[in-house]
Amino acid sequence: MPTVTVVENVLKLNDEVAALNRAMLRQAGVFAINLIGSPGCGKTSLLEATLKHFNGTRRVGVLVGDLTTTRDGDRLSRYCDDVVQINTGKGCHLDANQVRQGLQQIELADLDLLVIENVGNLICPVGFDLGQDVKVGMFSVSEGDDKAAKHPYLVHEASLVLLNKTDLVPHVPFDVELFRRDVWSLNPEIALMEVSVLRDAIGPWLEWTARRLDEVPVPGVIGA
Amino acid sequence: MPTVTVVENVLKLNDEVAALNRAMLRQAGVFAINLIGSPGCGKTSLLEATLKHFNGTRRVGVLVGDLTTTRDGDRLSRYCDDVVQINTGKGCHLDANQVRQGLQQIELADLDLLVIENVGNLICPVGFDLGQDVKVGMFSVSEGDDKAAKHPYLVHEASLVLLNKTDLVPHVPFDVELFRRDVWSLNPEIALMEVSVLRDAIGPWLEWTARRLDEVPVPGVIGA
Repeated sequence: MPTVTVVENVLKLNDEVAALNRAMLRQAGVFAINLIGSPGCGKTSLLEATLKHFNGTRRVGVLVGDLTTTRDGDRLSRYCDDVVQINTGKGCHLDANQVRQGLQQIELADLDLLVIENVGNLICPVGFDLGQDVKVGMFSVSEGDDKAAKHPYLVHEASLVLLNKTDLVPHVPFDVELFRRDVWSLNPEIALMEVSVLRDAIGPWLEWTARRLDEVPVPGVIGA
Repeated sequence: MPTVTVVENVLKLNDEVAALNRAMLRQAGVFAINLIGSPGCGKTSLLEATLKHFNGTRRVGVLVGDLTTTRDGDRLSRYCDDVVQINTGKGCHLDANQVRQGLQQIELADLDLLVIENVGNLICPVGFDLGQDVKVGMFSVSEGDDKAAKHPYLVHEASLVLLNKTDLVPHVPFDVELFRRDVWSLNPEIALMEVSVLRDAIGPWLEWTARRLDEVPVPGVIGA
């Protein structure tokens, strides 16, 4: 079937460019997170809080994907100089080549951490390797407790699942135990953190991220 | 560019099948809605309430798209016999051919209304005509007040925008006036309805839908 061949070729080419991105990031000693979640789950708000927290102690850059606006990039630029907005037009995910172009606009040697905020979508972003070290899946309480089970590929691929908006638990139907069971039955190894960006209750995420940065090898010696 | 050609051909083929679907639906006198919104915005809950409301007065069928589970189809089957679950695997939208296969499993002559609940995604579902009469875009308060502006193609293409979860306005940062302004600046003709499925406050949606059904021509005489 020709369609399948096209899709396979697109993904193969994407993987090749992602490998180049990964090598470039490792060479510079930058830890890279691909942050994937629904529109409105709180990705940009989480990054605002993260940039504020690490200001002065860790050097953070952000590539932020969006269809047509620069709203998220504008929000993040208030906290950080190294923000690149990638507009995908009608594209529902970032690909490795878009990230490559974004990386060329950042001085990677100056960074400890790069967060790639993917386009708001729980599906296609999962399939496109961008060269990140880890994928982080982000859900929110207001989306309903069935969303991990309904998006198994993201939960399989992620190293960490964030459940945001726990402050809304009293106001919406959401069975936290059910959500946890679904996540761990799909991926028994995964870390799951329940946070509220609105209430500034994101301590576990900040600690997890800081630990990852401490583990990054010294630039230039990977594979030595 | 070969990629563009492939995409154009895919969309052209999709449009041809959508035209067949549209003709089949009109022939049967069925009004068809393509319901598009984020994961967790409340599409399935809205349809549960809609099926309950129209029970005994209007005959409603549902095609429901999802990645891998039958959860939404199972929920809706409690209220209606004519529910077909379409699993898209890793596909982020329904296409006209999937809908065509779904239509073949429903006795269209028995229906007044068909709702196609698209895969939870604000982006790709907009570009694929399924043969519907109208597209309805669904947002929710907990997603943030910038989501209409960030998804202009959906607002352009929709005949109606539903803003769900208005019961959460006291608990989240959401500027209702800003959301309204964004919607109407993108599409001055569009109907905008603010609803709360959780509070069973969906009267305007039910009235709007009932009015559309009253306008559907008698089967078989379209174009006569």
